[in-house]
Amino acid sequence: MLLYDSAISGNCYKVRLLFAKLGIAYDRRELSVFDRSDRPEVLGELNPALRVPTLVLDDGRALAESGAILYHFAEGTELVPDDAFERAQVLQWMFFEQYNHEPNIAVLRFWNEAGTVHTDQEVQAKRAGGEAALQAMERHLGDRTFLVGERCTIADLALYAYTHLAPEGGFSLQPYPAITAWLARVADQPGHVAIDD
Amino acid sequence: MLLYDSAISGNCYKVRLLFAKLGIAYDRRELSVFDRSDRPEVLGELNPALRVPTLVLDDGRALAESGAILYHFAEGTELVPDDAFERAQVLQWMFFEQYNHEPNIAVLRFWNEAGTVHTDQEVQAKRAGGEAALQAMERHLGDRTFLVGERCTIADLALYAYTHLAPEGGFSLQPYPAITAWLARVADQPGHVAIDD
Repeated sequence: MLLYDSAISGNCYKVRLLFAKLGIAYDRRELSVFDRSDRPEVLGELNPALRVPTLVLDDGRALAESGAILYHFAEGTELVPDDAFERAQVLQWMFFEQYNHEPNIAVLRFWNEAGTVHTDQEVQAKRAGGEAALQAMERHLGDRTFLVGERCTIADLALYAYTHLAPEGGFSLQPYPAITAWLARVADQPGHVAIDD
Repeated sequence: MLLYDSAISGNCYKVRLLFAKLGIAYDRRELSVFDRSDRPEVLGELNPALRVPTLVLDDGRALAESGAILYHFAEGTELVPDDAFERAQVLQWMFFEQYNHEPNIAVLRFWNEAGTVHTDQEVQAKRAGGEAALQAMERHLGDRTFLVGERCTIADLALYAYTHLAPEGGFSLQPYPAITAWLARVADQPGHVAIDD
């Protein structure tokens, strides 16, 4: 399989992390997340959103969206619960990540990396949205080991990616002891790889 | 079951539409999408994101995020494909909806409804993002009947909700004949209900 990838994208890291854990082999092709001018040409026929990660299977079919890729390859493994309701909770956290977490925390990190200029109001809105997402995680993880069902699932992998990178977006994790302990637990799971491995 | 609901929310409408199709009975409790001050008290223990829809099952367990609710209740019905790759494509479109489509098209509609004031730059960014999402759908639907596998799935229900409401956000669907024909096909499926039914 061929993964259209970005070394610094947390969304791409989720896929690499899962594939490392499952021992799935694939090739990587790096696309820039700064200069996206080649995206229509490269991804136009593969992914309507023109984003990475985009995965091309050996038979030529393409699959996009980190959440869809994670769910597809992890289904049937111990990283997706057998119980139907717990599977739904896993999806709930993955949709939460893409709607409430990533657009704030990952985007502030990206603005830092890209050096783009934004108004104070824009930055403050992202900052507030990101803190709200972290507070929601902190409350939930306060009396839990992992996000769903007390064991590590793809929900944890999906949320780990940009949460452990949140300091690069200017977020301090100091006020979030439950998150900090959970990040260490996720990183301690078998087959873990770092974003720059 | 009890659905914490909003009559005008497209995300809540997705759940009502699915439940109508599947003949699932539930009670509704309306929450305001304008004054959200009661959200921590009402949803604090149920949904970390404090958003509607939030569904409380008869045993008291809660499930949130429209995508997770749709997938959970439709799994095993004809609205979710049997084929694993097609199921992944369904999830791909549902993640696309929550990341690329809803935050632009639904948010511009909401700003209109709520009468909130935003800069031209903010409105233009949402406008551009919404048009890009519609263009991606138009390209995909140009030679297809439905989004995945040539029959109606929860991906179509998820995208139908805010696409058919896009004119309320100031988007014209005139330039999108494939989308317009697809909207009519989705609305023509068995058990369809309107947002205000």
